[in-house]
Amino acid sequence: MIMSNRVTVEILNIGDELLLGIRTNSHLTYLGKQLSLLGLKIDHCQVVPDKEDSIKAAFAIATERSDIVITTGGLGPTEDDLTRESLAKLLGKKLIYNEAVFDSIKDRFLKLGRKVSEIHKKQCYQIEGSEILKNERGTAPGLLIKQDACTIILLPGPTHELIPMFEKQVLPYAKNNFCAQADHTYVQLRTCGIGESSVEDLVSPIVKQCGFAEIAFCVHLGIVDVRLSLADKTKNLDQLNQVADACRLALGDNFVGYGDISLSQVIFQKLREHQKTLAVAESCTGGLLGNAFTDIPGASKVFQGGVICYANEVKISQVSVPEEIIDQHGAVSGECAIAMASGVAENLSSDYGLSITGFAGPEGGNKENPVGTIHIGFHSSFGIWAKSVRYLGGRMDVKARAVNAALDWMRRLLIRQEQTDINGYTI
Amino acid sequence: MIMSNRVTVEILNIGDELLLGIRTNSHLTYLGKQLSLLGLKIDHCQVVPDKEDSIKAAFAIATERSDIVITTGGLGPTEDDLTRESLAKLLGKKLIYNEAVFDSIKDRFLKLGRKVSEIHKKQCYQIEGSEILKNERGTAPGLLIKQDACTIILLPGPTHELIPMFEKQVLPYAKNNFCAQADHTYVQLRTCGIGESSVEDLVSPIVKQCGFAEIAFCVHLGIVDVRLSLADKTKNLDQLNQVADACRLALGDNFVGYGDISLSQVIFQKLREHQKTLAVAESCTGGLLGNAFTDIPGASKVFQGGVICYANEVKISQVSVPEEIIDQHGAVSGECAIAMASGVAENLSSDYGLSITGFAGPEGGNKENPVGTIHIGFHSSFGIWAKSVRYLGGRMDVKARAVNAALDWMRRLLIRQEQTDINGYTI
Repeated sequence: MIMSNRVTVEILNIGDELLLGIRTNSHLTYLGKQLSLLGLKIDHCQVVPDKEDSIKAAFAIATERSDIVITTGGLGPTEDDLTRESLAKLLGKKLIYNEAVFDSIKDRFLKLGRKVSEIHKKQCYQIEGSEILKNERGTAPGLLIKQDACTIILLPGPTHELIPMFEKQVLPYAKNNFCAQADHTYVQLRTCGIGESSVEDLVSPIVKQCGFAEIAFCVHLGIVDVRLSLADKTKNLDQLNQVADACRLALGDNFVGYGDISLSQVIFQKLREHQKTLAVAESCTGGLLGNAFTDIPGASKVFQGGVICYANEVKISQVSVPEEIIDQHGAVSGECAIAMASGVAENLSSDYGLSITGFAGPEGGNKENPVGTIHIGFHSSFGIWAKSVRYLGGRMDVKARAVNAALDWMRRLLIRQEQTDINGYTI
Repeated sequence: MIMSNRVTVEILNIGDELLLGIRTNSHLTYLGKQLSLLGLKIDHCQVVPDKEDSIKAAFAIATERSDIVITTGGLGPTEDDLTRESLAKLLGKKLIYNEAVFDSIKDRFLKLGRKVSEIHKKQCYQIEGSEILKNERGTAPGLLIKQDACTIILLPGPTHELIPMFEKQVLPYAKNNFCAQADHTYVQLRTCGIGESSVEDLVSPIVKQCGFAEIAFCVHLGIVDVRLSLADKTKNLDQLNQVADACRLALGDNFVGYGDISLSQVIFQKLREHQKTLAVAESCTGGLLGNAFTDIPGASKVFQGGVICYANEVKISQVSVPEEIIDQHGAVSGECAIAMASGVAENLSSDYGLSITGFAGPEGGNKENPVGTIHIGFHSSFGIWAKSVRYLGGRMDVKARAVNAALDWMRRLLIRQEQTDINGYTI
């Protein structure tokens, strides 16, 4: 069924926990990203409580207006898992017990040294006429059902079960059945250090002039993403890439990279290229800066480690901050930030040192350095600097923004160094 | 308008980025939690792209079936911000320019040393008959409009703008207008260390027997939350708390705490009570363990700091792991974990040391310790232990689960120590 018209996709995320604020709907994010890589776009999303009536009503709307309906959640063994049952009732189809599913659950539990309980039999029923999607990581199988022109795919809620099921079974199916050409139809430019309206001022004129691209912006913690997509299907990705490249030039150093590349990845790549190493010292961010580097597979090639010097004694003993600096300038100061960056680079034998110290709040701070004040220190063979920034917002927010500010600053300093190197003024 | 029947609430989250997988819908989580504290429940949520037709269609459905409709996003200055415009068209109302809004944007920019641009005028239009909700943290004001029986509230997309607007303006309004009694109508029990079906086996019989509570489960990274809510409005919160307490006893040490308390908060409280301090040493989790403690305001009373000993040399130099241990057992071993925990406790002068070393993947690992293997070490005055766990899943997932496993294990060891203390066998 290769379709010439655009395929419409709808997601139903089922679960009280999503509406009660217990859990964030990361499934929508995951599916949105995966499907857009196939050139498919989610047109609608409904988040639905664990109630038969609500689930049936959402299915009725979705199967009527969409070509593909993907649900997440409500396939588990407990009583509030009602997706399978509600859809069967809506379609007027029977639920049929599948012994093979029960056997595979028994097998799985045996390996884990657990006993299967009666409660798991609930997961062994499949809707008449449906196909089973195997669950490698849990007990609840997924289901795929065709109903008139609509394909309905039921996926389990736990992320570690959903992802392999989607990637190994649903993705190949979607590619074969719904994608005339499995093309990337968008280009994303990531920027940091300037506001959304400034980014728009720089790139919008370029995009408008080309006349065949759509533009969307997304702001998160100091980062502004610009997504360009093809509005005119007679144009191709190469042409879109040319527009993106013009935008990149207009953005200058504010351009971080294409796609989802993180600030820490950009730094990682630059240091890797020059075979340099990095260590971090952090106070108020308490591990979040180090975490940004260790999220990168193979980080150990560049990242030596770090010190979370939360207590002042730890700043003195572990990253060799002179006691006088803390006495004279305070632990939240540019002087202390520089001492931390240099100390950690020296003690952990790394080429670069990056540090953060500040007041994340809600308490602490003083007249000179109110809550939200962050000092960042940078140590390198070409110089030692400190910089300060200030953020409003809650503790978590300040921590996350401080990490992005430190990373973006180091990224810019490395670019400046590269430019100096090219011009022959290596320090 | 104090309503006797249940008030129905609907959320419209507007923004392509939510459907393209660029951003996770954290607004729904935030609003769900805030509203449920008021005793209000979200009945529907639609996530909608930045298209006039889609926004209008979603508004049409929502205003028809819901008493309160809250939107997030699409109020910004850029061209893809269409919420205000689309709603005005649907309702057949004019957009009226409000000079005072422009003046406040100019003021704000002046303070920040920026110049206001023409593009911001777009945000100064309000729908005829609407009230302005002031934006303390950004440029786009919110709007509140009554249309027949429905109250429509438009909130901006950026989280740091939305939260203060919601808490200072929308929350008091909702309390006064929609909540006959602003009661907490649920109790949440957080558990860790056992699976969802085991939790259900323990608590469901108790909840069923009481006959007036509803139960919902939510699983995230090794944690299972149980939410009990009142199904019978003639019963009160005290009676629900009695049921929750019976569940707590049935859960034993698997019970972490009530509400949203984190594993690190439980440890923090216990150590604070006994005036003890903690330091952490972490390899593969790279800062995430330290971060769990520094997310707690006032963490410095307990948390000394930590060492991210990613490179083996850092394990040796900073947390005094004997070289022979790495040579003989490897850096990913129980022996190394114990040495890290003891070394960091000693070097950072803390009473307790907690450590994590492992292979987070996707590469690394060996026959004995395949990818996903995590060793946790614990150092205390009453003993030194190591424990190993193994997780399937991606790098981020393994890191997050390893942190939860280490925290939960320390929590249980502290409980065991307290029980020993009570029984008079203090070590």
